[in-house]
Amino acid sequence: MGGLASTRMTESAPPTRREHDVLGGCDVPAEAYWGVHTARAMRNFRLGGDRVGDSRALVRALGQVKKAAARANRDLGLLDPDKAFAIDQACDRVIVGDFDEQFPVSLVQGGAGTSTNMNANEVIANIALEHLGYPRGAYEVLHPNEHLNLGQSTNDVYPTAVKLALLESSQQLLVSMQTLKQAFGRKAAEFRGIVKVGRTQLQDAVPMTLGQEFRTYEIMIGEDQARLREAMAHLHEINLGATAIGTGVNTHPQYAELVRGHLEGITELPLVTAADLVEATQDCGAFVLLSATVKRAAVKMSKVCNDLRLLSSGPRAGLAEISLPARQAGSSIMPGKVNPVIPELVNQVAFEIIGLDLTVTVAAEAGQLQLNAFEPVIASSLLRGIRHLAIAFESLALDCVDDIHAQEDNLREFAASGIGLATALSPVIGYAAASEVATEAMRSRRSVLDVVLERGYLSSDEASALIAGGLTLN
Amino acid sequence: MGGLASTRMTESAPPTRREHDVLGGCDVPAEAYWGVHTARAMRNFRLGGDRVGDSRALVRALGQVKKAAARANRDLGLLDPDKAFAIDQACDRVIVGDFDEQFPVSLVQGGAGTSTNMNANEVIANIALEHLGYPRGAYEVLHPNEHLNLGQSTNDVYPTAVKLALLESSQQLLVSMQTLKQAFGRKAAEFRGIVKVGRTQLQDAVPMTLGQEFRTYEIMIGEDQARLREAMAHLHEINLGATAIGTGVNTHPQYAELVRGHLEGITELPLVTAADLVEATQDCGAFVLLSATVKRAAVKMSKVCNDLRLLSSGPRAGLAEISLPARQAGSSIMPGKVNPVIPELVNQVAFEIIGLDLTVTVAAEAGQLQLNAFEPVIASSLLRGIRHLAIAFESLALDCVDDIHAQEDNLREFAASGIGLATALSPVIGYAAASEVATEAMRSRRSVLDVVLERGYLSSDEASALIAGGLTLN
Amino acid sequence: MGGLASTRMTESAPPTRREHDVLGGCDVPAEAYWGVHTARAMRNFRLGGDRVGDSRALVRALGQVKKAAARANRDLGLLDPDKAFAIDQACDRVIVGDFDEQFPVSLVQGGAGTSTNMNANEVIANIALEHLGYPRGAYEVLHPNEHLNLGQSTNDVYPTAVKLALLESSQQLLVSMQTLKQAFGRKAAEFRGIVKVGRTQLQDAVPMTLGQEFRTYEIMIGEDQARLREAMAHLHEINLGATAIGTGVNTHPQYAELVRGHLEGITELPLVTAADLVEATQDCGAFVLLSATVKRAAVKMSKVCNDLRLLSSGPRAGLAEISLPARQAGSSIMPGKVNPVIPELVNQVAFEIIGLDLTVTVAAEAGQLQLNAFEPVIASSLLRGIRHLAIAFESLALDCVDDIHAQEDNLREFAASGIGLATALSPVIGYAAASEVATEAMRSRRSVLDVVLERGYLSSDEASALIAGGLTLN
Amino acid sequence: MGGLASTRMTESAPPTRREHDVLGGCDVPAEAYWGVHTARAMRNFRLGGDRVGDSRALVRALGQVKKAAARANRDLGLLDPDKAFAIDQACDRVIVGDFDEQFPVSLVQGGAGTSTNMNANEVIANIALEHLGYPRGAYEVLHPNEHLNLGQSTNDVYPTAVKLALLESSQQLLVSMQTLKQAFGRKAAEFRGIVKVGRTQLQDAVPMTLGQEFRTYEIMIGEDQARLREAMAHLHEINLGATAIGTGVNTHPQYAELVRGHLEGITELPLVTAADLVEATQDCGAFVLLSATVKRAAVKMSKVCNDLRLLSSGPRAGLAEISLPARQAGSSIMPGKVNPVIPELVNQVAFEIIGLDLTVTVAAEAGQLQLNAFEPVIASSLLRGIRHLAIAFESLALDCVDDIHAQEDNLREFAASGIGLATALSPVIGYAAASEVATEAMRSRRSVLDVVLERGYLSSDEASALIAGGLTLN
Repeated sequence: MGGLASTRMTESAPPTRREHDVLGGCDVPAEAYWGVHTARAMRNFRLGGDRVGDSRALVRALGQVKKAAARANRDLGLLDPDKAFAIDQACDRVIVGDFDEQFPVSLVQGGAGTSTNMNANEVIANIALEHLGYPRGAYEVLHPNEHLNLGQSTNDVYPTAVKLALLESSQQLLVSMQTLKQAFGRKAAEFRGIVKVGRTQLQDAVPMTLGQEFRTYEIMIGEDQARLREAMAHLHEINLGATAIGTGVNTHPQYAELVRGHLEGITELPLVTAADLVEATQDCGAFVLLSATVKRAAVKMSKVCNDLRLLSSGPRAGLAEISLPARQAGSSIMPGKVNPVIPELVNQVAFEIIGLDLTVTVAAEAGQLQLNAFEPVIASSLLRGIRHLAIAFESLALDCVDDIHAQEDNLREFAASGIGLATALSPVIGYAAASEVATEAMRSRRSVLDVVLERGYLSSDEASALIAGGLTLN
Repeated sequence: MGGLASTRMTESAPPTRREHDVLGGCDVPAEAYWGVHTARAMRNFRLGGDRVGDSRALVRALGQVKKAAARANRDLGLLDPDKAFAIDQACDRVIVGDFDEQFPVSLVQGGAGTSTNMNANEVIANIALEHLGYPRGAYEVLHPNEHLNLGQSTNDVYPTAVKLALLESSQQLLVSMQTLKQAFGRKAAEFRGIVKVGRTQLQDAVPMTLGQEFRTYEIMIGEDQARLREAMAHLHEINLGATAIGTGVNTHPQYAELVRGHLEGITELPLVTAADLVEATQDCGAFVLLSATVKRAAVKMSKVCNDLRLLSSGPRAGLAEISLPARQAGSSIMPGKVNPVIPELVNQVAFEIIGLDLTVTVAAEAGQLQLNAFEPVIASSLLRGIRHLAIAFESLALDCVDDIHAQEDNLREFAASGIGLATALSPVIGYAAASEVATEAMRSRRSVLDVVLERGYLSSDEASALIAGGLTLN
Repeated sequence: MGGLASTRMTESAPPTRREHDVLGGCDVPAEAYWGVHTARAMRNFRLGGDRVGDSRALVRALGQVKKAAARANRDLGLLDPDKAFAIDQACDRVIVGDFDEQFPVSLVQGGAGTSTNMNANEVIANIALEHLGYPRGAYEVLHPNEHLNLGQSTNDVYPTAVKLALLESSQQLLVSMQTLKQAFGRKAAEFRGIVKVGRTQLQDAVPMTLGQEFRTYEIMIGEDQARLREAMAHLHEINLGATAIGTGVNTHPQYAELVRGHLEGITELPLVTAADLVEATQDCGAFVLLSATVKRAAVKMSKVCNDLRLLSSGPRAGLAEISLPARQAGSSIMPGKVNPVIPELVNQVAFEIIGLDLTVTVAAEAGQLQLNAFEPVIASSLLRGIRHLAIAFESLALDCVDDIHAQEDNLREFAASGIGLATALSPVIGYAAASEVATEAMRSRRSVLDVVLERGYLSSDEASALIAGGLTLN
Repeated sequence: MGGLASTRMTESAPPTRREHDVLGGCDVPAEAYWGVHTARAMRNFRLGGDRVGDSRALVRALGQVKKAAARANRDLGLLDPDKAFAIDQACDRVIVGDFDEQFPVSLVQGGAGTSTNMNANEVIANIALEHLGYPRGAYEVLHPNEHLNLGQSTNDVYPTAVKLALLESSQQLLVSMQTLKQAFGRKAAEFRGIVKVGRTQLQDAVPMTLGQEFRTYEIMIGEDQARLREAMAHLHEINLGATAIGTGVNTHPQYAELVRGHLEGITELPLVTAADLVEATQDCGAFVLLSATVKRAAVKMSKVCNDLRLLSSGPRAGLAEISLPARQAGSSIMPGKVNPVIPELVNQVAFEIIGLDLTVTVAAEAGQLQLNAFEPVIASSLLRGIRHLAIAFESLALDCVDDIHAQEDNLREFAASGIGLATALSPVIGYAAASEVATEAMRSRRSVLDVVLERGYLSSDEASALIAGGLTLN
C-alpha cells in the first residue's frame, strides 16, 4: 500500500479514546459506548455468528437487571440518586433496543459471561454519563465496575439475565405453539367425518377418522405447552445477591430482597430469590430441564411432520391421503414435482434441537465447584433452539397445516380394502378363524367380507351390522 | 456326529408339545408355560442381555394388568367367573415372581412389544389351566388370545405395563436419592464451620465453608427428587381400553373404566385413563420426559462426583481438601495409591444415561402414525438407566460420602493464602486499587493483607474488621 | 436369627481362605481362583449386567497379554522359567475359556480397569500355583502383583486387552456384514429387471429398478466394511511397556519390544508399539473412531430398514412394493397382521448404538491428565454395541432379506402411473411445458402421456421412443 | 395507513420485475440477480442465522460446479458456445465472491437443497444475461432451469457443491491444527527438562516431565490431522451425472466424465465419479464420517483444555503448575482474578460440535429411499462446526499456548513430595513393603525416602541411585 494511501488512512482513522484494565491500556473507538473489557472480549472471542446484541431478549434482560440493581443500591443509600437516575434512564434505552449494536461480543464466550456483564456495565455507564453531561470514559464520575456492578457479580447478573431472556423467548414459543395447536384443531374438526385406515408399524390396522389423526396432533402440542409452562416456572428463581459464589460477599444484607422486588416490578414477572444462593449460583438444572422440554416438543412435532410427509406421499405412487399446499417448485429437473418443504424444515429444526440439547447437557455436566463456566454456550444453544422452533412451528401452521386437504377418494378406497375388518370379526368368530380369513383375503386379493361370507362364518346381515359397529368413530 | 450319539440325544431330548400360530406348527418344551408366540420371539430376537424376566418390575406389572383385565371382563360378563378366578390366581403368582424365568424374550424386540404381551398371555393361560386341572396347551379351554387378551391389545397392555414398571423402578430411585441426600446433609452439618476458599473457573475466588459445598449437593439431589416425582406423575395416565390404535375396537364401552378401577386397586396407585386414547396410544412424551429427568439427575451428580474427585486430588500434589474412603487398592503397580473408584463409577453410569436418553429420544422421534413400534428399546433403556442410577447413588452414599473426611490443615492453608480478600476490599478501596493489590500480591508471592498494609490503603485494624466480615459464613 | 439356624449356617458355609491387601484382610471362597482384589471390586461395583467374564473376547485377550508378558519377563531373566511356564499354561486355559466364570466383576467399574487387571492377575496366579502344586493363595511362591503384573500396569494391560477384544468382536461384525452384503447382492441380481418408480422426499420421481434399490444397500454395507477395517487398523497400536503413565517406570528397556513380539505371535495379529507411550496411555482416539464407524454402519442400515418397512407397508393401504417374510404373528388383537419385526429390531439396535456412541464420546472427553479413568465404560459400550450390531445384521440377512419378494403387480402399476415421465420430456419440450403437463396430469388424474399427446407436444411415435429411453436401466 | 403515506411508499418502492413458476407470478426486486425460486425460498425459510451467502466456500463451490457443467454441455454441443462463455464468466465472478449477497436463502431449508441450486441457477443466469447484453429475467435467452441446470439436478449439484465447500473448510481447519500442533511442539521442547509428578485419576502417580505432557498434545493433534485427511479423501467422490436419483435421466452418456474432468481442472482437486450413482445420490456416509472425525478432534482438544485449566488452577489454592496468559480481566467483582477464557472457549466449541455431530447423525438416519432430504442441515452443521473449530484451535495456539509459562517452583515441590517414588522401589523391596511405606509416608506426612531409610529397606546410597533412575526422563 502506497504512502499516500496510508497517510490518508491515518487521517481518516476513526478517533479513539484510551481505556485501562488490569492488562494495561487499550484504544477503543471514541464513539463506542462499550469500553476496554468489551474490546478485549471482541479480540478474544472471534467465532462470528450470534452476538449478544442479536438477542433482543438478552439485551433487554441485561438492561432490566442493571436497572433493578441501581434502584436497590439507591434505596440502600449506596448509590447517589442522580447517578441512579441516570443509570435508570440509560437502562430504559437499552431495554427498548436503542443500543443493541453496542453489544458486539459473541454469545459463545469464555469467562462464564463476564464479558457480557462488563459489556452491559460499560454501555450503560457511558449512556448514563451522556445523560449526566459527561463524555464517554469519564469513569471517575460513573464507573462500570464500581457503580454499574455495585453489589453484583457476573455470576448472579448473567444467569438472571439469561433466565429472563429465556422466559421471553419461551413465551414467544408458547404463542407459536398455540397457533399450531389451533391449526391442527381446525383440521381435526374439518376432517371429523372422514373414515380412513389406521396403521401400526406401517401395516394396515383398523379404521379411524382423519379427524382423530389431526386431533392427536392438537393434543400433543397442547401437552407440550403445559410442560413448557412448568419448565418455565423454574426460571423465575433468580440468584441476585449471590455475587461471586453465592455467599453474598460485598452485598448489603437487604440488597437481595430489594433487587428482586424492583426486578419483579420492571419485568412484571413473579420472581423468587433462591433459598440457597451457593447452590443456585452453580446449578444449571433449570436450563437442562428447559432444554429437555423444548427437545420433547421438537421430537414430537418431528414425528408429526414425518406423518404428514408420509400421508402426503405420492401423488400417485404413495399413500396420498392428504395433500400439502405447494410452496415452491419442488425440483430443478422434475417438472411438476412439489415437495413437503415446510415439514422438512421442521424436521431439520428438530434435528438441530436434539443436538443443541446435547450441547446443553454436556456443558451442564462440565461445571466445576462453585460455578459452571460454560453458561454462555448453554444460553446461546437455548436461545437459538427456542427461536428456531418458534419460527418453525408458526411456519408449519401458517404455511402448511392451514392448507392441508383430504384426498377423500384415496382415503375411502384404502379404508374399504383393509383387512382391519378381521379384527372386528375376531370376538365373534374367534382369533384363529379371523386370522385364517385375513390370510386368505390377502392371498387371494379379495376383501375380508367376501371370504367371511364364502366360508359361512357370518350371514350377510350379521356382517353388515359388524362393519357399521367397527366404524362407529367420533 | 455319530449314529449312537445322535440316537442318545434323541432319547434324552426333553419332551415337547405342539402349538400352532398363523405360520404353522411349532414344538415347545412340554414343561414350558410359554408357547408358540414366545418360541417365535426367542428365535427372532437373539441379542442376549436383558430379558423381560430380568425385570422384576415389568413382569409384576404384566401380571397386574392381566389380572385387572380379567376382573373387568368378568364384571362385564364376557369372561366365565371360573376362568376369571383361575386367571386371577395365576396372575398373583406371576406378580410375586414365581414365574420370572418363563419370560425369556429379549427386552429389546421388534413388534412393538407384541412378544412380551403374548408371552404373558401364554404363561398366565397355562398357569391358569393348571389351576383348572388342564394340561399346558389346552387352549380350547382357556386361550392366550381369546381369554387372556380379551378386550386388550399389545398397544394398550404393553405401554401400561411399562409405565407401572417404571413407576416401581423410579420409586426405588427416589429411595436411593433420599439415602444420598441424607448423606450429603450429614456432611453439610459436620463441615459447617470449616472455612475454605471458593473457586470459580478453577481459580481462587472468595471464602466459603466446606459445609456450604456439601449443602449444595444435598439441595441439588432434593430438587431432582421433586422433578422426578413430577415426571412420574405423567406415568399414572394409562390407555387401557384403547386396543389397537385407540379407537377401542373390540372393547365393551364400560371396559376402560372398569379395568382402570381394578388396576388402581391392585397396584394401589392413582391411575387415570387418558382423555384421548388415540393420542395416548402413539404418544411417547411421558417416556421422553422421564428420561430427561433421570438424565438431569445423573448429569448433576456426575458434576458433584467430578468435584469430589477434584477436592480429593493428591494426596500431595493435588487439592487434598477432603479424603474419600479407600475402597480397594488403587493400582496394580503403584503401591499405596488409592483411587476415587466410587465417584468414577457414578460418572460412568451418568455417561451411560446420557447415551440412553439419546436412545430414548431417537426412538421416540421414530414413531409413525398410530403407534411407536420402538417402545421396547425405550422401555429397556429407561429400566436399565434407572436401575443403574439407583445403585450408583446408593453406592455413592454408603461407600463414599458417609466416610468423607475434611483435610482441615490443607483447607485452612488455602483459605489463608487466597487473594479473594481483595474482593472484600474492593468496596472500600475501589476495584482498580484492589486489582493492583491482588496483582502485586501474586507477583511477589505475598498475602493481600501485607500488600494493603504496605501501601497504606488500610490500617491494620480496618483490615482485621474487614476480614472478619468476609468470613461471616453460615 | 436364632442360634440353631446360625450354627447351621456356619456349618454349611463354604470354606474360605484369607487374603490381604492395603485395606486389611478379607475372606474369599477357598475354591475361588480370584482373590482379595476381585472380592473388593465385587463389593464396590454392583450394577449387575455384563461382567468381564461375559465377554469371551476380553477374557481371552487378558490371557493373551499376561502370557506375552510372562514370556517377555522370562526372556529378560526377570521371571524364573518354571514360574513362567506355569503362567503360560494357566494363560492357555484362560484363553480357551475354561475360567470365564472366575471373572465376576462388572465390566463397568471405577478404577480405570484396575479390578479387571487384578482379577486376571489373581486367577492366573492361582491356576499357575495349581500347576506348580501349590494351594490357592500361596502368593509367596507366585504373586499376583509381583509376578503376574511384572513390568506391567493396569494402564498398559487393560487398554491393550480391550483393543484385542474389540478386534475380535469387530472381526465377527465384519463376517456378519459380509452375510448381509451378500444377501442384498442376491436380491439386487434377482430384482434386476423389475422397473419401479424412484422417489425423492417421498414424492414420485423418475423410474429405476428394484435391483438398483437393493444394489445400493449392498454397496453401502460394503463401504462400511471398508471403513470398519480402517478403524480396526488403529487398534493394532498397543502401549505395553508404558506401565503407569507411559514413562515405562519399572520396566526393562527391552521389555516393550519383547512383549509386543510375543503378543503378536500369540494373537497372530500385526501389532505395533505406540511411538510415544505417554500419549498412547491417555489417548482414547482409537476408541472414539471405532465407535463412530460402528455408529455410521448402524445409522445407514437403520435407514435401509426404514426403507424396507416403507416399501413393505400395506398390505393394502401402503406401498406394498415388496413383502417381507412373516416371522411371527403380528398382533395379539388383529388377526392376520404381520409386522416387519426384524427391521424393527435393527432400527432399535441402531438407536442403542447412537446412544452408546455418545457414551463413548462423553467418556473420552472426560479423561484427565495422564489417564482416562473411564475406559471401562468405553470398553463395555463398544463391546455391547458391536455384539448387538453383528447379531442384528446377521438376523436382517437370514431372517428377512433372504426371503423378500417383489410385489411385481404393484411395482408395475406405480411405475406406469408416474409423473416422472415429465422429467424425460423436459429436455425435448422444455421445463415450463413439461411442468404444465405434469400439473394437468395430476389435476385430471390422467397419465402424462395422455396429456402430452392431447396437447400435441409430441407424436405418439416420438413419445414411445422417449419412454423406452427413460426406462433404459441396468 | 393514510393515503399520502401509501402513495409515497408506492413512489419510493423499489422497482420490481415479474417472474413466474409453477405457482404463478411473483414480483422480485428489479435489481436482484436472484429470481422467483429464490423469492419463494426466502418466504418459506425464515429461521434467520446463516444464509447460503454467508458461506464463502459454498458459494464458490456452486460457481465451480455450474462452470464445469456449462463447459461439459458446451463440449457435448448441448449448449451454445456464446451462452457457455457468458455462463463461464458469470461463474468466475460468483467464484471470487462478487455476488455473495445474492444468496440470501437460509442454509437450513426444506427441499433437499433445491432452493440453493435454483438460487445459483438464477443468479448466474442473470449475471450471464448481463454479459450478453440482456436485462435480468430475459430467460427466453438464457434460462435458469434449461441452460444453467442442463444435465443437472439439485440431487447431484448440491451434494457435490457441499463436498467442495467442506473440503475448503476442512483445509482451513488443517491449517489451524498445524498452528496448534506447532505451538504445543514448541512448548514440549521448552519444557523438556522440567520434572513433575504425573497423575492418574487425579491422584499422584509417578514422575514425568512437563515436556512430555505437551508433547502428548502435539502428537494428539497430529493424529487428528491424519484422520481428518482420511475423512476428507471420501469427499473427493462426487455424483455429477446422477441427476434426480442416480439413474442419469436427462444426461448425455459422456456428461458425467466430462463434467468431472472440468471440475477437477477448475478446483485443482482430484475428483472421482462414484461407481454407483444411485447409491452415491442417497448416501450421507461421507458426511457422517467427516462429522465424527471433526468431533474426535474437538473432544480430544476439549480434554487438553480441561488439563490446561486444571494445571493452571490457583493461583494459590490450585495446582498452579503452569500459568496461562491473561487475556482480559477475569471478574467484574473479584479484582486481580484472571480466568482461562481461551480454553473455556475451546471447551464450549467442542460441546457445540458434539451436538452438531448428533444433528448430522440423526439427519443422516432420516434419509428415505432415493434421497436424503435433510442434507441442508447436515451441510450447515458441518460448515458451522468446522469453522468454529478452526477459529478455536487458532485462538488456542496464538492466544494461549504460545504464552504458557511453567511455574517451576510449584512443579519441583510437588515432584519432590510425591509418593510415586514408592513405585520405583516396588521391584526392589516388593509391592507389599512398598505399599506399607507409601501408606506410612502419607499418614505421617513424611517423604517416602524418609520412611524407607527409617525402616532400613534401603541404604541411603541405594535410595539415591534408584531415585536418579526413576527420573530418567526424556
